[in-house]
Amino acid sequence: MSQRTEIAELGEFGLIEHLTKNFETHHASTILGVGDDAAVIDHFGKQTVVTTDLLIEGIHFDLMYTPLKHLGYKSVIVNLSDVYAMNAMPTQITMSIGISNRFSVEALDEFYEGVFLACEKYGVDLVGGDTSSSNKGLIISVTAIGEAEADKLVKRSTAQKGDLICVSGDLGGAFLGLTLMEREKKIYLENPQIQPDLENEDYIVGRLLRPEARRDIIDFFAQQGIMPTAMMDVSDGLSSEALHLCTQSQLGCRIYEEKLPVSEQSKAAAFKFGLDPTVCALNGGEDYELIFTLKQEDHEKIVLNEEISVIGYMTDAEEGRKLLTRGGNSFDLSAQGWNAFGG
Amino acid sequence: MSQRTEIAELGEFGLIEHLTKNFETHHASTILGVGDDAAVIDHFGKQTVVTTDLLIEGIHFDLMYTPLKHLGYKSVIVNLSDVYAMNAMPTQITMSIGISNRFSVEALDEFYEGVFLACEKYGVDLVGGDTSSSNKGLIISVTAIGEAEADKLVKRSTAQKGDLICVSGDLGGAFLGLTLMEREKKIYLENPQIQPDLENEDYIVGRLLRPEARRDIIDFFAQQGIMPTAMMDVSDGLSSEALHLCTQSQLGCRIYEEKLPVSEQSKAAAFKFGLDPTVCALNGGEDYELIFTLKQEDHEKIVLNEEISVIGYMTDAEEGRKLLTRGGNSFDLSAQGWNAFGG
Repeated sequence: MSQRTEIAELGEFGLIEHLTKNFETHHASTILGVGDDAAVIDHFGKQTVVTTDLLIEGIHFDLMYTPLKHLGYKSVIVNLSDVYAMNAMPTQITMSIGISNRFSVEALDEFYEGVFLACEKYGVDLVGGDTSSSNKGLIISVTAIGEAEADKLVKRSTAQKGDLICVSGDLGGAFLGLTLMEREKKIYLENPQIQPDLENEDYIVGRLLRPEARRDIIDFFAQQGIMPTAMMDVSDGLSSEALHLCTQSQLGCRIYEEKLPVSEQSKAAAFKFGLDPTVCALNGGEDYELIFTLKQEDHEKIVLNEEISVIGYMTDAEEGRKLLTRGGNSFDLSAQGWNAFGG
Repeated sequence: MSQRTEIAELGEFGLIEHLTKNFETHHASTILGVGDDAAVIDHFGKQTVVTTDLLIEGIHFDLMYTPLKHLGYKSVIVNLSDVYAMNAMPTQITMSIGISNRFSVEALDEFYEGVFLACEKYGVDLVGGDTSSSNKGLIISVTAIGEAEADKLVKRSTAQKGDLICVSGDLGGAFLGLTLMEREKKIYLENPQIQPDLENEDYIVGRLLRPEARRDIIDFFAQQGIMPTAMMDVSDGLSSEALHLCTQSQLGCRIYEEKLPVSEQSKAAAFKFGLDPTVCALNGGEDYELIFTLKQEDHEKIVLNEEISVIGYMTDAEEGRKLLTRGGNSFDLSAQGWNAFGG
């Protein structure tokens, strides 16, 4: 009788767009609503940035191999990353958790130790939240608030043709860490006597369990007087994020496989697992690096920063969204990143 | 070996205090952190209020008798209520949901219809959020942002001895609605042929499923130049909230049973279920009314507002926290409201 459309038909971003398309804003202070890393609210010239994330046990994390302290730390980091991606500075967070009785107070203390450590390190205040019981495993909801001068905010939609595409740090490590932990978990479940083999894998495990947010890059922009033309953080995978920048800026792009930054440890792990490091870099999520575009004349300002790689440039929309491989082939970029709906 | 403290030993408020007690704030803009209805952030004289709530299926709502549109509406309302409780005006919300595949897009549309309706009615903008899959039923996380002039914010801790204790609307209705729905659910599960008997119960069912936030009271304060000395919203039950005001203001109180506002419909329902209406008013939660204290000389400013009842007054801490019954007895108030940890 009534229509039934499966959520997977729309995908996560299609779903958000579908749900919010008819919604108008009332407040002049609402500068930017749904559709960027964070919402922006004007406060007398300074702009307040707000972003929120929901983390659900079994979907976003697995307590079997995620220490609670790391989880607390990461829950904060993923939200700060969204604030930095606006070229803003996070100032406050709220943290709500739903917990079952199987957690002791000591376990929660561990979780909050990680939360506080991240707050200390990034200089943000925990200002509120909510604890409630949960019959559904651990649920974490964080909201981060930040601020920026009005003319310093960087959106996703403002890249220009010819701009350089840059990325911070290296890519694919968190995905390889996840692959390793899932493999070790499987081995452990089959034979609990076998100890996990994590030797020499500190880097990729750290990328998964204890990521950092790239405050250093935002500080560097401020020191050097650099204004990216567009920016977002790499949470779903580089391909997916590059496509977002293209779509929202109504442009195409050209990305060079040989320029993708992949760490030696990630390359070694990819080799061990029989995975293509390029695919890990393009489609692996959760690296929490920044992808941004830059005017070509700003190139010299970043060239000495070893934490920034130029990986390509923006083109007219008609030229498509292309990956140029080492072998000289050209492929359409596709978003095969982690999809929250498995669609 | 390691110590294990059960969460129930601390209770929800004890737990929050325990988890956040060693946490210092870094930003001068952080005016008020954990421990009130909302956090307060200074923005150049105007103050930004932030509050967040996590709603979990099976804990905070039962989809068996909660229409999704109502649930969307209520998810917004419970957060706006916390903003009004600071004597502030909500301006924006973010909404994150975790959903399983059993929800169709049409079901989500219904939920968002309720969200938008509440946003429209209360003049707030939906500015962000997150959708993700959930293997744990429906999870809803809302953050509300509001603003107030710095000298207009009302905290919980600033009541004075002799102040009148006032409450808006009437109490106990939502709890009686919940009692009714749980009873009908039980009957239905035992015999699905029997149709629910909700005749003449519109009021209490509405109080449970589709509450309103008391913006009208905050508007009234502004029009009349009234500044409550302390305020919070009634979400856990009047007793519990009155005890919070006492603790945080370091005072005692005297509340008169005969002054507690209970609607005729609630009285009738209480009679039908064999419940004491006073107990429902004191310990039933989710009414989303406002409890506030007022200087005695302001009494004449509220006396004509039929939506406000004076139910008692604040005393020295030494005089205790007392309920004076119709029969002339005096009891200690106790917080038997809904406890998220069943403690």
